[in-house]
Amino acid sequence: MTDLARTPRRVYLDHAATTPMTAAAVEALTGQLTSTGNPSSLHASGRHARRVVEESRERIAQALGCRPGEVVFTSGGTEADNLALKGLYWARGRPRILATAVEHLAVLDPLHWLAEHEGAEVELLPVDAQGRLEVEALRAAVERDPEAVGLISVMWANNEVGTLQPLDRVVEIASEHGIPVHTDAVQALGAVPVDFAASGVDALTLTGHKVGGPYGVGALVVRREVEVTPLVHGGGQERDIRSGTIDTPAIAGLAAAVEVAVKAQADEHGRLAALRDDLVARICAVVPDAVPNGDPDHRLPGHAHLRFPGCEGDSLLMLLDAQGIECSTGSACNAGVPQASHVLLAMGRTEDEARSSLRFSLGHTTVTEDVDALVAAIGPVVERARAAGVRRGAS
Amino acid sequence: MTDLARTPRRVYLDHAATTPMTAAAVEALTGQLTSTGNPSSLHASGRHARRVVEESRERIAQALGCRPGEVVFTSGGTEADNLALKGLYWARGRPRILATAVEHLAVLDPLHWLAEHEGAEVELLPVDAQGRLEVEALRAAVERDPEAVGLISVMWANNEVGTLQPLDRVVEIASEHGIPVHTDAVQALGAVPVDFAASGVDALTLTGHKVGGPYGVGALVVRREVEVTPLVHGGGQERDIRSGTIDTPAIAGLAAAVEVAVKAQADEHGRLAALRDDLVARICAVVPDAVPNGDPDHRLPGHAHLRFPGCEGDSLLMLLDAQGIECSTGSACNAGVPQASHVLLAMGRTEDEARSSLRFSLGHTTVTEDVDALVAAIGPVVERARAAGVRRGAS
Repeated sequence: MTDLARTPRRVYLDHAATTPMTAAAVEALTGQLTSTGNPSSLHASGRHARRVVEESRERIAQALGCRPGEVVFTSGGTEADNLALKGLYWARGRPRILATAVEHLAVLDPLHWLAEHEGAEVELLPVDAQGRLEVEALRAAVERDPEAVGLISVMWANNEVGTLQPLDRVVEIASEHGIPVHTDAVQALGAVPVDFAASGVDALTLTGHKVGGPYGVGALVVRREVEVTPLVHGGGQERDIRSGTIDTPAIAGLAAAVEVAVKAQADEHGRLAALRDDLVARICAVVPDAVPNGDPDHRLPGHAHLRFPGCEGDSLLMLLDAQGIECSTGSACNAGVPQASHVLLAMGRTEDEARSSLRFSLGHTTVTEDVDALVAAIGPVVERARAAGVRRGAS
Repeated sequence: MTDLARTPRRVYLDHAATTPMTAAAVEALTGQLTSTGNPSSLHASGRHARRVVEESRERIAQALGCRPGEVVFTSGGTEADNLALKGLYWARGRPRILATAVEHLAVLDPLHWLAEHEGAEVELLPVDAQGRLEVEALRAAVERDPEAVGLISVMWANNEVGTLQPLDRVVEIASEHGIPVHTDAVQALGAVPVDFAASGVDALTLTGHKVGGPYGVGALVVRREVEVTPLVHGGGQERDIRSGTIDTPAIAGLAAAVEVAVKAQADEHGRLAALRDDLVARICAVVPDAVPNGDPDHRLPGHAHLRFPGCEGDSLLMLLDAQGIECSTGSACNAGVPQASHVLLAMGRTEDEARSSLRFSLGHTTVTEDVDALVAAIGPVVERARAAGVRRGAS
């Protein structure tokens, strides 16, 4: 607590790592903490909890354009991704899995395991310099042997650089061959319009703590016609796809957060994109050789990702942190392992270029003052990081 | 909300399904809800969250007699059981798995899947009429081919009838052959003394919502020397055994709950056992042919499990519920599927006998008035259930 308390105001620009819970979500969750009753129990307390869960499921379905029965609650995005990939692979029994090279580790690591341990043939498809899937490469890969493809997994939007993927084209190609498509929409939900039915995907991952909901809860939205082998077996909860006692308070919090995020999405998109554009323009004015990463046209509104030539991203991060400004060098989900981002490498950056980048991600609590603070700090911070880099011989 | 609000006071005797959160756990959890920061982020908010998580891990380790590095947080007991069983099976690559026939479905269902899908040879060992493992059957099974045994899983205490298993004997036999032992201690923790190091087991499952903590969080306590293949792959959190964003608020709530439960255990054991004995004696006075199930000597203090000859357990449950008294016919984790308990069948009961049983489980909020209310209601309820049973031709 101490170091936080000493600083008058933290500038939090790491909403892509996790974003504060909205008041509605806190209220919905805490409102259930003192209720007792396992939603699988038959007595009144159990039925009461079950009703909270099913109403939450309906609210989420309403917000996402899916049917309530398509929402399978999980412990979060990573579990939902694992369930989708392993579950579809096992259920379909076809060896090939296609995904982009810029997927989150919650997709890449299960794929790696399926290849090493379960005989999957995983093909990671190239992206362009902006991080967008090369659609023709996907088409060629599919057409090489469509019958052998068990599933295609393409994220809705990239968590590091914010690039939106051409998911409609992916669905088009997959549907020609009846191949199920999974998408990790963890970063997209609440930032851009996400409609499950309209998207045409078969399975979609979302998580609470990226949309103003609690940690420890998320969902795999999955069409009822699609067979998925469970990852976690037990009492048969969640249509027998995901067992485990149902977490009523977290689910209530998730539903409130999803509703708020989806309702606010259009307004927030305009507000955040304007703040983000301002942030990028003003940083580039202070640090003229800074280079924005990602797709200028197809991108999330709250992501600003820049390369600062001659600086180590980690040094920048720590120097900014010392000024009370919080950001990230990439995904927080890499558990603090310092290595060049696989996303930037796949976009054609060198190791050095990849290691000299920072992600600023804006969210529902971000205000102009946050951007002002960053702009005021970035110049001297870059100078200091560069000096340190020159001493260490960094490029 | 309506049906609960109408009833003046619910008598909750289903603590084995889920027990109310203790005040300390609610406070610890809610205290973290408005903090932001992914524990894997490098900035001050992230480091603050990380500190909360690591302090919680230390408190849990202290309460359980294990090292902090042995605590791997999961989304709950079911996931921890799945991780232990599948993870040990995959990591060790030996075909045989031994378990009792009375394990929780969170153990039996993964074992069934491992047998069907992954080539495991699962042997379910017999229990006696009180639900206690036949130790000599375990010894004989192990000695038939010890080299081929990948793991042994024996629950600390049974969730339905409350029978404690002879875990020390299990560990003794297993250690002669270097076979790892997993135990599901979900029901035992807080009810009887649970010391990980002293028990000699290699892996132990616990969950928050059975010890006064939150849903959606639990742990697999697992010795560092034991290799476990992950079930959920991703960013490599939790020593690369269990990936997924770390749920700081729930972990803080879990630590508070475990501490309170372990500290109160000795006193609560006496208090609950006395209440439970009173409950059983008074029920048997009102319903003279009621038959207590489970082991009279080796048992949890809060479990009362009785057979009411000539009654359907489901009818009893619903009639009691209408009187505001909440209990269960077995495990709530069976997601409402009405079938005879596999635990009672393994104990040698007939299908009819199994279906005529009820579980009353006491916990930290149980008071004498709850027992009084049950004793006052049970006579007429049994009469009505019997009349219904006779009409339907039930035995």
